[in-house]
Amino acid sequence: MGHDEQFSIEVRFGRAIRKRRNELGLSQEELADLAGLHRTYIGDVERGKRNVSLVNIDKLAKTLGISIWTLFRDYGIEESSEKTP
Amino acid sequence: MGHDEQFSIEVRFGRAIRKRRNELGLSQEELADLAGLHRTYIGDVERGKRNVSLVNIDKLAKTLGISIWTLFRDYGIEESSEKTP
Repeated sequence: MGHDEQFSIEVRFGRAIRKRRNELGLSQEELADLAGLHRTYIGDVERGKRNVSLVNIDKLAKTLGISIWTLFRDYGIEESSEKTP
Repeated sequence: MGHDEQFSIEVRFGRAIRKRRNELGLSQEELADLAGLHRTYIGDVERGKRNVSLVNIDKLAKTLGISIWTLFRDYGIEESSEKTP
Protein backbone atom coordinates (compact mmCIF):
# COMPACT_ATOMS: atom_id res chain seq x y z
CA MET A 1 0.00 0.00 0.00
CA GLY A 2 1.51 3.34 -1.02
CA HIS A 3 1.11 6.65 0.67
CA ASP A 4 0.08 9.97 -0.71
CA GLU A 5 1.77 13.12 0.50
CA GLN A 6 -1.09 15.25 -0.80
CA PHE A 7 -2.78 14.20 2.45
CA SER A 8 -1.42 15.51 5.74
CA ILE A 9 0.29 13.21 8.19
CA GLU A 10 -2.76 13.54 10.48
CA VAL A 11 -5.10 12.34 7.71
CA ARG A 12 -2.82 9.45 6.74
CA PHE A 13 -2.46 8.46 10.39
CA GLY A 14 -6.22 8.56 10.93
CA ARG A 15 -6.85 6.34 7.93
CA ALA A 16 -4.27 3.85 9.18
CA ILE A 17 -5.96 3.66 12.57
CA ARG A 18 -9.36 3.12 10.94
CA LYS A 19 -7.99 0.44 8.60
CA ARG A 20 -6.35 -1.47 11.43
CA ARG A 21 -9.42 -1.10 13.68
CA ASN A 22 -11.64 -2.47 10.92
CA GLU A 23 -9.26 -5.39 10.37
CA LEU A 24 -9.81 -6.32 14.00
CA GLY A 25 -13.57 -5.84 13.72
CA LEU A 26 -13.65 -3.27 16.49
CA SER A 27 -16.05 -0.33 16.71
CA GLN A 28 -14.71 3.13 17.54
CA GLU A 29 -16.35 2.78 20.94
CA GLU A 30 -14.69 -0.57 21.61
CA LEU A 31 -11.29 0.80 20.61
CA ALA A 32 -11.87 3.85 22.81
CA ASP A 33 -12.77 1.69 25.81
CA LEU A 34 -9.83 -0.66 25.31
CA ALA A 35 -7.36 2.21 24.87
CA GLY A 36 -8.79 4.30 27.72
CA LEU A 37 -9.57 7.15 25.34
CA HIS A 38 -12.77 9.02 24.45
CA ARG A 39 -14.93 7.78 21.59
CA THR A 40 -15.16 11.29 20.15
CA TYR A 41 -11.37 11.52 20.29
CA ILE A 42 -11.05 8.30 18.25
CA GLY A 43 -13.51 9.71 15.71
CA ASP A 44 -11.49 12.92 15.45
CA VAL A 45 -8.23 10.98 15.07
CA GLU A 46 -9.66 8.85 12.27
CA ARG A 47 -10.88 11.95 10.43
CA GLY A 48 -7.39 13.49 10.61
CA LYS A 49 -8.53 16.21 13.00
CA ARG A 50 -6.01 15.50 15.74
CA ASN A 51 -2.28 16.04 15.99
CA VAL A 52 -1.89 12.89 18.09
CA SER A 53 0.90 12.76 20.66
CA LEU A 54 3.57 10.09 20.98
CA VAL A 55 1.98 8.67 24.14
CA ASN A 56 -1.40 8.28 22.44
CA ILE A 57 0.19 6.87 19.27
CA ASP A 58 1.82 4.26 21.50
CA LYS A 59 -1.45 3.58 23.33
CA LEU A 60 -3.40 3.18 20.08
CA ALA A 61 -0.81 0.90 18.48
CA LYS A 62 -0.60 -1.33 21.57
CA THR A 63 -4.40 -1.58 21.75
CA LEU A 64 -4.50 -2.46 18.04
CA GLY A 65 -1.89 -5.18 18.58
CA ILE A 66 0.66 -3.71 16.21
CA SER A 67 3.98 -1.92 16.47
CA ILE A 68 4.11 1.77 15.60
CA TRP A 69 6.64 1.06 12.87
CA THR A 70 4.40 -1.54 11.21
CA LEU A 71 1.45 0.83 11.41
CA PHE A 72 3.47 3.57 9.67
CA ARG A 73 5.07 1.27 7.11
CA ASP A 74 2.21 -0.98 6.11
CA TYR A 75 -0.98 1.07 6.53
CA GLY A 76 -0.45 3.82 3.99
CA ILE A 77 1.20 6.47 6.16
CA GLU A 78 4.66 6.15 4.60
CA GLU A 79 6.32 4.27 1.77
CA SER A 80 7.42 0.79 2.78
CA SER A 81 10.37 0.72 0.41
CA GLU A 82 12.88 2.93 2.23
CA LYS A 83 16.23 1.26 2.73
CA THR A 84 17.59 1.10 6.24
CA PRO A 85 20.28 3.79 6.40
CA MET B 1 19.28 -2.73 18.47
CA GLY B 2 16.66 -3.82 21.00
CA HIS B 3 14.38 -1.63 23.00
CA ASP B 4 13.71 -1.52 26.67
CA GLU B 5 10.20 -0.97 27.93
CA GLN B 6 11.50 0.09 31.32
CA PHE B 7 12.01 3.43 29.60
CA SER B 8 9.00 5.48 28.54
CA ILE B 9 8.16 5.98 24.89
CA GLU B 10 9.24 9.63 25.25
CA VAL B 11 12.69 8.61 26.54
CA ARG B 12 13.13 5.96 23.84
CA PHE B 13 12.03 8.44 21.17
CA GLY B 14 14.42 11.10 22.46
CA ARG B 15 17.35 8.69 22.39
CA ALA B 16 16.50 7.70 18.82
CA ILE B 17 16.48 11.34 17.73
CA ARG B 18 19.85 11.93 19.40
CA LYS B 19 21.35 8.78 17.87
CA ARG B 20 20.21 9.71 14.37
CA ARG B 21 21.29 13.36 14.80
CA ASN B 22 24.75 12.22 15.89
CA GLU B 23 24.99 9.88 12.91
CA LEU B 24 24.51 12.88 10.68
CA GLY B 25 27.01 14.95 12.66
CA LEU B 26 24.48 17.67 13.40
CA SER B 27 24.38 19.78 16.54
CA GLN B 28 21.07 20.28 18.37
CA GLU B 29 21.13 23.86 17.12
CA GLU B 30 21.63 22.81 13.50
CA LEU B 31 18.80 20.27 13.74
CA ALA B 32 16.57 22.91 15.33
CA ASP B 33 17.32 25.41 12.55
CA LEU B 34 16.79 22.85 9.78
CA ALA B 35 13.53 21.60 11.29
CA GLY B 36 12.22 25.06 12.15
CA LEU B 37 12.03 24.18 15.84
CA HIS B 38 13.55 25.69 18.97
CA ARG B 39 16.94 24.48 20.21
CA THR B 40 15.60 24.11 23.75
CA TYR B 41 12.71 22.06 22.38
CA ILE B 42 15.18 19.65 20.68
CA GLY B 43 17.09 19.36 23.95
CA ASP B 44 13.88 18.56 25.83
CA VAL B 45 12.84 15.99 23.20
CA GLU B 46 16.20 14.22 23.40
CA ARG B 47 15.97 14.04 27.20
CA GLY B 48 12.53 12.44 26.96
CA LYS B 49 10.80 15.48 28.44
CA ARG B 50 8.35 16.05 25.58
CA ASN B 51 5.29 14.15 24.43
CA VAL B 52 6.04 15.01 20.79
CA SER B 53 3.11 15.37 18.39
CA LEU B 54 2.66 13.58 15.08
CA VAL B 55 3.39 16.74 13.09
CA ASN B 56 6.68 17.31 14.91
CA ILE B 57 7.62 13.61 14.68
CA ASP B 58 7.12 13.94 10.92
CA LYS B 59 9.13 17.17 10.79
CA LEU B 60 12.02 15.67 12.78
CA ALA B 61 12.13 12.47 10.72
CA LYS B 62 12.09 14.38 7.42
CA THR B 63 14.86 16.69 8.62
CA LEU B 64 16.89 13.68 9.73
CA GLY B 65 16.42 12.07 6.29
CA ILE B 66 14.68 8.97 7.60
CA SER B 67 11.17 7.56 7.59
CA ILE B 68 9.26 7.48 10.85
CA TRP B 69 8.96 3.70 10.61
CA THR B 70 12.71 3.23 10.20
CA LEU B 71 13.33 5.56 13.14
CA PHE B 72 10.97 3.51 15.32
CA ARG B 73 12.18 0.13 14.11
CA ASP B 74 15.93 0.59 13.94
CA TYR B 75 16.83 3.16 16.59
CA GLY B 76 15.83 1.35 19.76
CA ILE B 77 12.26 2.60 20.17
CA GLU B 78 10.60 -0.72 19.31
CA GLU B 79 11.63 -4.27 18.53
CA SER B 80 12.50 -4.75 14.88
CA SER B 81 11.38 -8.37 14.78
CA GLU B 82 7.59 -8.01 14.69
CA LYS B 83 5.98 -9.87 11.84
CA THR B 84 3.72 -7.94 9.52
CA PRO B 85 0.20 -8.93 10.53
